[in-house]
Amino acid sequence: MAQRTHYCGELREQHHGEQVVLKGWVQRRRDLGSLIFVDLRDRTGIVQVVFGDEAPEAREIADKIRNEYVVEIEGKVVLRDPSQVNPNIATGNIEVVASDIKIINASKTPPFAIEDYVDINEDVRLKYRYLDLRRPVMYNTFKLRSDVTRTIRNFLQNDGFLEVETPILTKSTPEGARDYLVPSRVHEGEFYALPQSPQLFKQLLMVAGFEKYFQIARCFRDEDLRADRQPEFTQVDIETSFMSMDEIIDMTERMLAAVMKEVKGIEVQTPFPRMTYQEAMDRFGSDKPDVRFGLELINLTDIVKDCNFKVFTSAVEKGGVVKAINVKGANDKFTRKDIDALTEFVAIYGAKGLAWIKVTEEGFTGPIAKFFEGQIVEDIKNATGAEPGDLLLFGADEASIVAASLGALRNKLGKELGLIDESQFAFLWVTDWPLLEWDEEEKRYTAAHHPFTRPFDEDIELMDTDPGKVRAQAYDIVLNGYELGGGSLRIYERDLQEKMFNLLGFTKEQAYEQFGFLLEAFEYGVPPHGGIAMGLDRLVMILAGRNNLRDTIAFPKTATASCLLTEAPSPVTPKQLKELHIKVDLPE
Amino acid sequence: MAQRTHYCGELREQHHGEQVVLKGWVQRRRDLGSLIFVDLRDRTGIVQVVFGDEAPEAREIADKIRNEYVVEIEGKVVLRDPSQVNPNIATGNIEVVASDIKIINASKTPPFAIEDYVDINEDVRLKYRYLDLRRPVMYNTFKLRSDVTRTIRNFLQNDGFLEVETPILTKSTPEGARDYLVPSRVHEGEFYALPQSPQLFKQLLMVAGFEKYFQIARCFRDEDLRADRQPEFTQVDIETSFMSMDEIIDMTERMLAAVMKEVKGIEVQTPFPRMTYQEAMDRFGSDKPDVRFGLELINLTDIVKDCNFKVFTSAVEKGGVVKAINVKGANDKFTRKDIDALTEFVAIYGAKGLAWIKVTEEGFTGPIAKFFEGQIVEDIKNATGAEPGDLLLFGADEASIVAASLGALRNKLGKELGLIDESQFAFLWVTDWPLLEWDEEEKRYTAAHHPFTRPFDEDIELMDTDPGKVRAQAYDIVLNGYELGGGSLRIYERDLQEKMFNLLGFTKEQAYEQFGFLLEAFEYGVPPHGGIAMGLDRLVMILAGRNNLRDTIAFPKTATASCLLTEAPSPVTPKQLKELHIKVDLPE
Repeated sequence: MAQRTHYCGELREQHHGEQVVLKGWVQRRRDLGSLIFVDLRDRTGIVQVVFGDEAPEAREIADKIRNEYVVEIEGKVVLRDPSQVNPNIATGNIEVVASDIKIINASKTPPFAIEDYVDINEDVRLKYRYLDLRRPVMYNTFKLRSDVTRTIRNFLQNDGFLEVETPILTKSTPEGARDYLVPSRVHEGEFYALPQSPQLFKQLLMVAGFEKYFQIARCFRDEDLRADRQPEFTQVDIETSFMSMDEIIDMTERMLAAVMKEVKGIEVQTPFPRMTYQEAMDRFGSDKPDVRFGLELINLTDIVKDCNFKVFTSAVEKGGVVKAINVKGANDKFTRKDIDALTEFVAIYGAKGLAWIKVTEEGFTGPIAKFFEGQIVEDIKNATGAEPGDLLLFGADEASIVAASLGALRNKLGKELGLIDESQFAFLWVTDWPLLEWDEEEKRYTAAHHPFTRPFDEDIELMDTDPGKVRAQAYDIVLNGYELGGGSLRIYERDLQEKMFNLLGFTKEQAYEQFGFLLEAFEYGVPPHGGIAMGLDRLVMILAGRNNLRDTIAFPKTATASCLLTEAPSPVTPKQLKELHIKVDLPE
Repeated sequence: MAQRTHYCGELREQHHGEQVVLKGWVQRRRDLGSLIFVDLRDRTGIVQVVFGDEAPEAREIADKIRNEYVVEIEGKVVLRDPSQVNPNIATGNIEVVASDIKIINASKTPPFAIEDYVDINEDVRLKYRYLDLRRPVMYNTFKLRSDVTRTIRNFLQNDGFLEVETPILTKSTPEGARDYLVPSRVHEGEFYALPQSPQLFKQLLMVAGFEKYFQIARCFRDEDLRADRQPEFTQVDIETSFMSMDEIIDMTERMLAAVMKEVKGIEVQTPFPRMTYQEAMDRFGSDKPDVRFGLELINLTDIVKDCNFKVFTSAVEKGGVVKAINVKGANDKFTRKDIDALTEFVAIYGAKGLAWIKVTEEGFTGPIAKFFEGQIVEDIKNATGAEPGDLLLFGADEASIVAASLGALRNKLGKELGLIDESQFAFLWVTDWPLLEWDEEEKRYTAAHHPFTRPFDEDIELMDTDPGKVRAQAYDIVLNGYELGGGSLRIYERDLQEKMFNLLGFTKEQAYEQFGFLLEAFEYGVPPHGGIAMGLDRLVMILAGRNNLRDTIAFPKTATASCLLTEAPSPVTPKQLKELHIKVDLPE
């Protein structure tokens, strides 16, 4: 076979007159009697090839080819007649007049067209993933993914970071999600775990004095499949020594700015805005607010605590809150039925109802309008900025339920009302997280992030007196309402780490049994350290403008895994089981 | 804490007079009464810090610090008195006069010194891996590893390759080593396998039209631990479409040349020499010859077939070969006892003995000298280039035993006699491999590489008539006698792939059961493709001048895995087992 001289998608006017050898797939063949037109595709794009009378043998072969055949074509680049120019493709000004063609491989008719916009079931796409990935939109997503990791790696390595690989077969450590377990053949009855993150290893690398570590690391969680979760996922994992929270945040911002520049050609403003966890929950009802639009939650608790509406006052009496969002000018966009649908929506988040008021020139209207009068009406108007035409939607319940339900409602309305500028990329830091969360079921504190997160120095004494109030030196990075990742400074003193384990309900023996190697390492000169981890799949999904995480993964898993044979678990042979010393205990 | 202004190892004369903030570990403290000297270490190196009368408080704190304490030091860089210059360290011309010191963290006395040359048991090093990795030689190995992957990635991405991640939780495919298996909680009784290589996925990516794929991929083999094997290892994995063997070889050479340039500052000559498998076996008795030295195997079969030495003639009569290596000038370096030791050594490789002749001015001497006379002596001298002072060592047996034993002997003598220029990096391609190997035990052919390897086009018809003679379009890259990696062109026609599976003893049903997804993909326009895979761990080991593969892996596994708690498999709880639907069946 001849050597390829050019890629299809790269041919332009400047190649006019050049003799070329192209290789690729037949996108489409049109037989116009005297001429056969073939759209030839490779990973760079499509070019039109013409077979005519000058090369009758080639024309005869071209007559036999069908879509997705693999062919090699020799020919000459010529300018198209102005009337034939196709402005929709990059090579639309030229075409290749073929002198020779070889069929390298044939193809059955593919089950779906190899085009960006195809309306097909995802199961079919996954069954024929090798065809699905031929669609330019998919190739471009993986090109973008490769470019993102390249930019991140170059940025970090230029900044003195070392990429270090940590083990995949590792020790099971509790906390977090369920581990995948791997039976050991050598150590009978024992199991390796697949890591949920390289957390412990990266901390050990800081103890080892590596100072600046990163890894683009595969992580695993044995959880049920959801649209936005994969059992194996990839994390940009970073750890540093001797750096303050501000320094880590600044470094991360410069890294993300480099990615945006390189991959999207967008200059993002740094520093990114920061918001405390409390402010994010108060204003947006979310710890990962999408700040590309308003619709903020307005706290009316003080204003309505003495109103005549029982639902509000009793919520306040029970220690709850009353909040509203003002949907500007939406007064006549929502019918009673629409609002009923919204009420069902907020019920998912635990809200017992969705009170609403339409603001008109005449004042408040709607079923609960009558409960508000005089100064309270004015105060609500002032607080919410309500004007005639606006729709006020209320939540009244425990603070967490109001946040969850109005926060979700805000996102839903933001999307549906087109309030979001989809071309915008809004980065945001959320800081000052609580260190601990109270687990009502188990009647104990759990780590809000993980047990190695460092409390604010000035809050350390609260660990003894009021642990729920302790703030963590933790920070999450949010993009367009998605949690991209998060990090923290870590505990580096053994005493403090022991105290933390103690707060989490570990006895000293348990702590040493499970984390002894870390506590032991903590006796040998541990530097202050901290880092961050970011989900690569999600970052790629956002930057590629996809809305399905699986589109960012070459061979993803699905709940109906059998549709992609390469991905399904499969029965093992009795011999294999015997070697593993395990018996399968199938449920009845 | 103050922000670090410099790294310890980077301070030079040019910093004279500068005020600096350093952070790091105490390498050594010397108390000279009026002065305390502290060698402060970070990942870049060591600098000397002096505490004197100018800062009595700092001096007091410095009095308390011990080795491996983590400290922050403020001070001023000054030139050392010429008599105090230390030429052994990069910062030896200067020192830092401390004005302040803070103890950030204390340390117990470490179990071994943090120095390049320490004579300690590897188990102890692995137990305290976080201290072992503080030794500069270890840090530098991982720096080199990071630099190697960076160079490879940049080279390939600049050459249009996409890095694509393939799954770790995948389907078990037979052939090769034992798979690690992961029980699926969702699909009861079924298991994922961890990949031994991304082979099938990278071929599917070629079917998908990605054309140029690479990945620095983690791979897994459930094998017993050996010094040169780890159950998880990293592979530079490359696949291309439409490229010839020469193009793939050329691309690989340019990539390796870039690594040598970037990491070692060495310009290597390209193209690398090539040698067929047969020539490598004939001349060096090895399919991965170290060509940095001679000591080649010389075939004397024809010359000695009629000699008087029964051992030689009977080997020839049985269809075997007689070969010799000429150890130049070693005549008097080897006592009878030495040769006995060599005889024991070759016995490991199946040799029944080691005949030898010492060449003197008077002719051949030694126990078998008497069997050779006249023209045969002259012919042996001519063939081997034997001169007075030389030692000839002979192998006479089946070709494979002679190759294995003399090949190993050659490597051993090359090292022991100092014939190898250790500063040299000798790359070599070994080509024209056999496609199939005959398995005497199972009475069937097995794939010499893997079942997707492409035969030479002109040998395809031999598949029906004389399969053992079929050559593969496969190539191994060898460096200094180590197999760095290998690759091949692949079969891309379904018919040929089916024929191959058939030769390997698969029924059509079995082939489809195990590789159906690939054979099915082969119906949809598969491009010609081929690639290469290289062991990263081994490449790093050679370039870093280490002789232990574990030194290239941050947290390796050992046969006594319990010495590194983070690495050991561990018992799981009954609850976890129940969720996995498996019972452990411990042997008595």
